[in-house]
Formats: sequence, C-alpha cells, structure tokens
Amino acid sequence: MSSRSLITPRTLKGFRDYLPEVMIPRERLMETAREVYRSFGFSPIDTPALEYTAILLGKGGDETDKQLYRFEDKGGRDVALRFDLTVPLARFVAQHGQELGMPFKRYHIGPVWRGENTQRGRFREFIQCDFDTIGTESIVSDIETAVVIHELFAKLGFERFVIRVNDRKVLTGVLERVGLADRAAPVLRALDKLAKVGPDKVAAEIVAEAGASDKEAREVLRVATLDGSNADMLERLAPLVEGSETGRAGLESLRELLAGASAAGVGAERLRLDPSIARGLDYYTGTVFETFLGDLEDIGSVCSGGRYDDLASVYTKERLPGIGASMGLDRLLAAMQELGLVEAVRTPAPIFLPFFAADRRDDYLALASRLRAAGFGTELYPKARKLGAQLKYADRRGHAVAVIIGEDEWAAGTCQVKDLATGASEEVALSELTAVLGRTLAGRK
Amino acid sequence: MSSRSLITPRTLKGFRDYLPEVMIPRERLMETAREVYRSFGFSPIDTPALEYTAILLGKGGDETDKQLYRFEDKGGRDVALRFDLTVPLARFVAQHGQELGMPFKRYHIGPVWRGENTQRGRFREFIQCDFDTIGTESIVSDIETAVVIHELFAKLGFERFVIRVNDRKVLTGVLERVGLADRAAPVLRALDKLAKVGPDKVAAEIVAEAGASDKEAREVLRVATLDGSNADMLERLAPLVEGSETGRAGLESLRELLAGASAAGVGAERLRLDPSIARGLDYYTGTVFETFLGDLEDIGSVCSGGRYDDLASVYTKERLPGIGASMGLDRLLAAMQELGLVEAVRTPAPIFLPFFAADRRDDYLALASRLRAAGFGTELYPKARKLGAQLKYADRRGHAVAVIIGEDEWAAGTCQVKDLATGASEEVALSELTAVLGRTLAGRK
Repeated sequence: MSSRSLITPRTLKGFRDYLPEVMIPRERLMETAREVYRSFGFSPIDTPALEYTAILLGKGGDETDKQLYRFEDKGGRDVALRFDLTVPLARFVAQHGQELGMPFKRYHIGPVWRGENTQRGRFREFIQCDFDTIGTESIVSDIETAVVIHELFAKLGFERFVIRVNDRKVLTGVLERVGLADRAAPVLRALDKLAKVGPDKVAAEIVAEAGASDKEAREVLRVATLDGSNADMLERLAPLVEGSETGRAGLESLRELLAGASAAGVGAERLRLDPSIARGLDYYTGTVFETFLGDLEDIGSVCSGGRYDDLASVYTKERLPGIGASMGLDRLLAAMQELGLVEAVRTPAPIFLPFFAADRRDDYLALASRLRAAGFGTELYPKARKLGAQLKYADRRGHAVAVIIGEDEWAAGTCQVKDLATGASEEVALSELTAVLGRTLAGRK
Repeated sequence: MSSRSLITPRTLKGFRDYLPEVMIPRERLMETAREVYRSFGFSPIDTPALEYTAILLGKGGDETDKQLYRFEDKGGRDVALRFDLTVPLARFVAQHGQELGMPFKRYHIGPVWRGENTQRGRFREFIQCDFDTIGTESIVSDIETAVVIHELFAKLGFERFVIRVNDRKVLTGVLERVGLADRAAPVLRALDKLAKVGPDKVAAEIVAEAGASDKEAREVLRVATLDGSNADMLERLAPLVEGSETGRAGLESLRELLAGASAAGVGAERLRLDPSIARGLDYYTGTVFETFLGDLEDIGSVCSGGRYDDLASVYTKERLPGIGASMGLDRLLAAMQELGLVEAVRTPAPIFLPFFAADRRDDYLALASRLRAAGFGTELYPKARKLGAQLKYADRRGHAVAVIIGEDEWAAGTCQVKDLATGASEEVALSELTAVLGRTLAGRK
C-alpha cells in the first residue's frame, strides 16, 4: 500500500468546489429565491441534467453546439448536459401541458453546464434561478415579473439596484420610423452591447452589420441614450414611434407596466424605463428586463428576462406565450465574494459546546439535544481536549457563542456563556441557559 | 414554419421530470435535511457534477466503471459524472484539508448519476443527502450520527422507523471464533442480503463464496439472526466474540453508542442493535447503520452509513478516519408517492386572489403585495375572467383560501374569504383581512 502512488486531487478547469464559507451564503441566496418565488405562487419543478441532444438543440444554433457537453451514452444515445433551464422548460411544458393546466407558473433552480472559454472568469458549471409564467399574454404577468425581481433583490439585502425595463416593440417602432425594420436582428444585437462598448462602436456595428447609414445608426442611438424620469421618457418616446402601431402598443404596455408595478409597491428609482435594453436573444417579443446592482455595475445584469410569443414551437403546435426571468446565482455570488460582501462564517450552528470534562460525555450529549430542541443549532466538540484548542476551532468556524461547562460547573449546575466575538463571558444556571441564549443571539443579525 | 416537423418532447430512459406536486414535497425533504444537519453544526459544501474519471474511479472497480457516464470533453479530458458524493468528499478533503481544519463536519445534497439497469425501477439520476464527520475516531461522532438520523426521520414526520446498528468489529470477532476471519469479505457480502433473500440462501452463499462448511455458515447465521432488547443482545453477543480482542472492542463501542444515543433522547425502540447489519461496502470498519421505515419495510434501508478508517487514501497520505450516512431522497420520495403519503398540492401559495373586476387591476396588485408583506403567499390570477373558471384553477392547484373581491366589494371595502377545502365563505372587511387569514390558516398545518 505505502508504495502506491497517489492521485492528485483536483477539479476540472472551469469547475469549482464550494467550501462552507461560500456555500453558506450560496444556500442563503437559493433559499431567498425560493421564498420569494413561492410567495407569488410559482411552483417548483425539476428536469434531468442530461437530455437528448436533439431536444436541447431544438432550433439548432452553432454557438450553442460548441458549448454543449455532448456525448454518446452506453445505450448509443446522443445526449448532452443542459446548458440553460429555458429549453428544458419548453420541452417540459410541451410534454406535460395537459397535466399542468394553464396559466402555469414555475420556478426552477439548478445547475447548467457550458464548455465556455474560462479566460473571462466564467465557470463551466453554474446555478440558474429561473421563474416563468406560461400561457398568458396578460400585462399582469409582466408587472408581476418586475415585482418578483424587486422583491428578490430587496430580500437579498441589496440596497441599491435598478431594474431596467423596455419593450422590444418600442424598438421595432423606432426602427420602422428610421427605415431599418427589416434589419432589426443585427441592430438589436449591436444595441445590446451599448453599456459594454459605448455608442461609437455600436453605431459602427449598426452600419457594418445592418447596412445602415451613419445617420440612421445615430437616430437609433439617440433613442437608446434618452434619459429621464419614467413619465418623461414615456412622453419623449411617443413622437419617436409615431405612425408605428407596434411602437405605440409597446409604449402603452410599458405605461401599464410602470403603473402596475408602482401600485404593487415598486419605487420609481428601482424600475426605470431604458430604451437601450434590447436583450440579444431573438425570442423576446415584448417586455425585456435587466437588473443592475448599484455597487456592482460592471458585472452586468444579474437578473434578466422578458416576454416571448411562443415558448415551445419546436415541440408542440400549441402556442405558449409567456414571460420570465433568470438570476445568475453563481455569477452574483462570485461578485459578492470579490467585494467582500460575504461574511466568512464556516458553520451554520451558532452555539459551540466544548467537551472537556471527560467523564460527562452523556451529559454533554443530553445538553446538546436540549439546546437543539429549543431551536439553537449546537455543535458538540467530539472529544475531550484542552479548552484553548477547542475555542480556537470554534473561532475558526465562526460560532457565535460557546457554552463552557467543566466538572465544577456540572456539579454546580451552571455554565459559562462566552460571546466568541467580544470574548465577554457570563455565568449562567443551566436551568436558565436557553432563555439567556435567546437574549444573547437576538442581539445579532 | 408550419410545415416544419416537431421534435417529440421526452426524457431519457431512467430520468424523470419532477412536476410541482412531487417537487413540493421533494423540496420539503431537502429543507428538512438541511435544517437537521445544520442544527448539529454540519456545514454545506458542493462539488462539480463532472470530474476527471481517474479521480472518480480512484481505487478502480469494474462494476462502478460500468455505471459511469463517462466521455471525453472538448479539451480531450477523460471525464465522468459523479456516481456518489463520497468519492468527491474524499477528493475535496484531500485537496482542501489544510484550509478546512479537522474535525470537519459537512453535509452535501446533490444529484448523482449511474447508468443502472432501470428494470428494477431504479433511476439513473437521483439526489443523495449525505453528512459526514471527518478527522476523528471519537465515539461521540458515532453517537451523533445516530442522533442525526433519528432527528431527520422524526422531523420528516415518520412515526414508525428503526435505525439498525451494528459494528463490523463484532462480526469480525464472530468470524474469528468460527474460523472464517480470513474470508470476511465474501461472508459479509452474503450477510448483507439476509433481509432480501432469507437465511437459507445466505448460508448457501457463505458456503459457496467463502468456502465455509455448512456448520460454520449456520454459526454465523445464528449470530446474525439473534433478536432481543439492546441490553439482552449485548449480553448474548459477549460469549460469541469471546477471545477476540476486536470483537470485544466492537461490543464495547456499541454499548457506548447505545448509552450515548439514549442520553441524547433516542428511544430504544428507534435504535436497535442488529448483528445482521453488515453493509456490503468494504470500506466500513466499525459502526454501521441502516434505517427502515415501519410502513415501507420492503423498500430497504432509506438511510445508511458507517465508520471508516481512512477516507481519502487514494489522494493523500494523511489518514482521515470518519463516519457518515446518506439518505436516498428520491428513493424515499418515490416510495412515499406510491403509498399516497404525498399530498397533491401544486402550489406553494396558500392564498388565491381571483381577478374579476376588470378595471381594478392595480388594486388587486396592491392587495396581493400587502398580503405577501404580511407573510401570506398569494397568487393573483393574471387576467379578468369568470369567477368559476378561476376557482376551478385554484382547486386544481390546491390553494387553501380564495380572497374574492368584485366591483361591489371594492366599493364597500370588503371581501369574501372562501375556504377552498370546505367551500365555506365569510365576508370580511379589507382592513381586517390579514388578521382573519392568520386565524383561518392557523387552523391548518
């Protein structure tokens, strides 16, 4: 055995382990998302990580293909790992639609895999938190989507964030007026890069890719760079889509969305009409959203989505309009870590119970059970050892409080409650312990 | 577009979709597991779904190889999907041990993949809920493992379950006495099937595979089929391991485990010494656990585990003893479904708010926000429609209560609170609504 060579423990490039100090806030992010989605009546679903490649590719698309983890399974099937949660949703709704009934509101939190270039700090495995409302074209669902995003980031504890909203139909109206309606796709793709590359490069791309004149490109940009209050913007956009029925409908939809979201408690500073928001993806047809964090502008949108006319046309003849959005959880988490917004706690249990009266094992076990039954997460150190070494362990883990009991305390029915942040200690009767812990911990978080 | 052929929506054999009525209890199972693990100070971790095949195979093993989803990625790496959470834990601890510090207590809830024969109703993708304590040989961790399993199934709401515990060393002691110590592996593998195939087939297998005499096989079986109270069993096993130091140590360890678990509040009817429990896997060296549900005996153990001497010898020279157990969540869920133990609720929101005064959209939106802010998950129907159709939708989803407000009610500042289970309805002032809902829902779980 001793001569056998070891295998070097390592993960694949682009993949990462989550240690407790990162996994604890990661679970908190997921729990908050679940809590918010549920409170609006979105139901959870799950789908397999592996699907038939033909199902995942659906409409095809070269770029997607390159990113796929695709292989032949032992049964000779051409399979691949899902690269998003939207394609599986389309397949799911086409397959189970009868059973689900419409409208159908679902959330789905799970990992997706893309063999992306890792040089830009991208991971090849990351968790998406999606929610969608399928089977209705009502503006109420567009409004609700904005309200959900608002609740989500408010509950996550972000104080400064802005949901930027637009309607694809407004952009279509503008393009109709400018005379670029038949070249909408390359124009919108160029526009989608505005925040990243600036107006000059976008104008150049519109000229190069959509065959527009410089003047036409500048007119599109003039609309995209409009700024002002939501009411101002609605007013200033009206003449810019004049004569376009589509553009008018888009503006009206935005007007209703802003009014409804305001009624639902979303402040105007949190939801801003931004005519530059285009979203690169072709399938959006109406409302589009992006969400930016005030302290993390440069990581880009952390929650994006929009309305689509038909989710699952690849799999079913039934037309399924809908709207939804997706939070990129691991991207958000990585950014929060980088900024030091993630507290380095390595344990979910606030209470640490050192074990150092060697003969009292069963007493420690009984006490730990009693504390847990009273609602206090409690870690009992597994063996008798010097107190100093055990407290060092607790410090490293980040427990809030140590309940210290040696032989004398056991005999006297008392303990020391030590605040591990301040070092302050107080003597407490064991009969009073849960009450004291309740008060001590209530002062935190 | 209309002439394009559709792709049939379907999942791969052995994989399944989780619809809301199954996903809701599945999330509840995971949340309960997290809550229990956390309360003992186990910290969450996560590892990639994909790893180097060489890492996952570690010690090799033909059978494992056959079950692997293994392929070459675009970078030419030999990779595979993880088939359990134990091998990734070993790799993880070997890789990050310095940073983690010992003892290290972690839980890990996540999917694993095995290309198993699906004819026995096995899935090829399923969620494991593991917890382990690494880096200590203290009996406290063995005791705690039993207490965690107990808490887990109690919190999940099972009234009848039994954790069956044994120590591999007791079986070793018996085999030493019988003269089969050098053939322990085939004997234990045979013994592991006792509940499934009965004593005669096990005896035959011990004779065939371990080259034992029929008398020797029967002596092993006599020990394995002993029955009685824990105290009785300890007494009756003592002479059966006499002269074996290993056997004596195993019995002493069991004695301490039973006493400690009892002190921690685990009733004797919930934790039973069972000398037939062997666990097939070679790496267990001490305590072994299996857990059976009174109402679901024939699905086998739903939570199993045990103590091992050295977790990660493939990856590191550091010896890492530990103990842990794993709950097979999807297996448990499938069994609960089959037995009708899963309530068919398709929504996580108790309150349904029909939308039927068409001009009051923003009022409905504002009320829905108010109810959510008061803690009541509320689904607003997305568009004005006949009340009957909306209530049918709510019935199908399983909302508990509908808050019904038409134009007259809006004008009067009242609403109808309708219990969707009983059909009973009461008129309530909107100003009293949250108080009434609190009372109405408090009567339910």
